[in-house]
Amino acid sequence: MNERQRVRRPGGRSARVGAQVHQAVTDLISERGYGNFAVGDVAARAGVADSSIYRRWGDLESLLTEVALTRLNTQSPMPDTGSLAGDLRTYAAQVAREITGPDGPAVLHLAVALSGSGQQGRQAGDALRAERTRQLESVLARARDRGENAPDALDVLDHILAPMYIRVLFGMVPLTPDYIDGLVDRLL
Amino acid sequence: MNERQRVRRPGGRSARVGAQVHQAVTDLISERGYGNFAVGDVAARAGVADSSIYRRWGDLESLLTEVALTRLNTQSPMPDTGSLAGDLRTYAAQVAREITGPDGPAVLHLAVALSGSGQQGRQAGDALRAERTRQLESVLARARDRGENAPDALDVLDHILAPMYIRVLFGMVPLTPDYIDGLVDRLL
Repeated sequence: MNERQRVRRPGGRSARVGAQVHQAVTDLISERGYGNFAVGDVAARAGVADSSIYRRWGDLESLLTEVALTRLNTQSPMPDTGSLAGDLRTYAAQVAREITGPDGPAVLHLAVALSGSGQQGRQAGDALRAERTRQLESVLARARDRGENAPDALDVLDHILAPMYIRVLFGMVPLTPDYIDGLVDRLL
Repeated sequence: MNERQRVRRPGGRSARVGAQVHQAVTDLISERGYGNFAVGDVAARAGVADSSIYRRWGDLESLLTEVALTRLNTQSPMPDTGSLAGDLRTYAAQVAREITGPDGPAVLHLAVALSGSGQQGRQAGDALRAERTRQLESVLARARDRGENAPDALDVLDHILAPMYIRVLFGMVPLTPDYIDGLVDRLL
């Protein structure tokens, strides 16, 4: 890319490099797993210079944290079906689709690995959990406003999200619709 | 160590080296996390030659798999309290103590990381799950023989083990006795 193009479309180039680097990270995590590649591997796969990555993200862990947060936070909007059972069934099915999709298990493994690897990773895990809890609270509060009995957000974590996460982390897939609905019915 | 000693106590030396290497791995996992150390680091920490590790374990992943299996399988015997509620409460408390103990979170992170990193790790995860299921089945079968209603072993995985595993993996500790008993009571 020549200098004139860079001056004319700085946002375009920056966004494109960001997308290429994110995709390279996701591919490498799927192929090799966390801990088995370096900044140079990401740069080569994305077709950018190592220095571009160091300049923008600082180090590999910061880049991995951004990828995990972006991937796990860009989820479908929270459902509003008119009943708590309907909302939770739809929500659980969305999460199941995300974590069993093409890069889903790899991204989930990455998020868990980052949580166990120092302060930055723990903060990313905390941020992710806070966002999920905030989304869930809105669904649960709406149910209470309708006069329904609603569990705590932590109960949803323990009995709907945790079983699905553990099954995907240990390769116990697929998660069938009957299995997912059964988790919701048991909780309610 | 001279040749005479090696001839006289081969089992003793082998067992001692094995214990030193296992401890070195556990320490490095706790300090640096999975993926952030090599065979040379383990050898230096354990006070043995790199070649001793390669000769006995072949590569780092085989060594890590052995450590995870050994640590997660050497658990207390399954309880036999006379009631299913008592057995599951005691079992859940034992698991909680193991995974929140000094190296517990690091070993759990290691087991999850290995499950996501190739065929050998998946086989180790399968072996671990088979062993846990076998132990649980004995408790559940005993309860059925007494005429109690008992859930499936997979229900125990989903609603007692998975919530505790996810909370430890994401640093949501401690696991209080009330929390643990609550998981058992809700399942039964």
